[in-house]
Amino acid sequence: MDRIPILKFGDALLVTIQVDMHDRMATALEEDLTTRIVQYGAHGVLIDISTLEIVDSFMGRMLDGIASVSRMLDAETVVVGMRPAVAITLVELGLSLSGVRTALNVERGMELITRTREAQDVADAGTEDDDRRPA
Amino acid sequence: MDRIPILKFGDALLVTIQVDMHDRMATALEEDLTTRIVQYGAHGVLIDISTLEIVDSFMGRMLDGIASVSRMLDAETVVVGMRPAVAITLVELGLSLSGVRTALNVERGMELITRTREAQDVADAGTEDDDRRPA
Repeated sequence: MDRIPILKFGDALLVTIQVDMHDRMATALEEDLTTRIVQYGAHGVLIDISTLEIVDSFMGRMLDGIASVSRMLDAETVVVGMRPAVAITLVELGLSLSGVRTALNVERGMELITRTREAQDVADAGTEDDDRRPA
Repeated sequence: MDRIPILKFGDALLVTIQVDMHDRMATALEEDLTTRIVQYGAHGVLIDISTLEIVDSFMGRMLDGIASVSRMLDAETVVVGMRPAVAITLVELGLSLSGVRTALNVERGMELITRTREAQDVADAGTEDDDRRPA
């Protein structure tokens, strides 16, 4: 088992990281995620890291990488369930995960994605001549 | 890492099984799940097994066990993402998972839990003197 399952939830994809990632697994996850984002037209990627007690620089860069690629495909990445100790370690490592948004848990992460999407829709609608949404 | 994360989603809890379970892990999962069901007042448990290529009799009994315990705590268990080969193996092993409901994916599983709950609420309301829902 060297693939991490990607679950679809409405407009978003959910990934729970439960094992220590190695190179090949990280690459496979990034590939699978991009395929699914396009396949489902997903607007958000939720990555749950609540079981991770340690996040090293490899994992930090992986999260940043996933966020960058997802953004190019018009999907927002939200990392959820980060432990306080992990946050401290990341800052100490100089990894601020600037491209990644965070939320306390999956539900709040999902709300964040929905709200961001709605705000974008409103902004898009504002640029139209009338109030109707583009088809 | 020998604990499987349990994510809360509205009225339901979500567990993704990604690794081969051993005894201690299965016991820990059952304990954690029951604690969370009570803590959040959850009405459903979704268990995603989409990455599992093999489900042996140990895993089959574990799923049955979780379903039985959850039912006692008024939560429905839905196993989602079962591969066709796994379904065939389970039947061949004589494990029909009679106490477990199944759904093709997480979204359908969630719908199933919501629908079951609504049907129960209607049934409960019907036993009242008037149509108002009990407080």
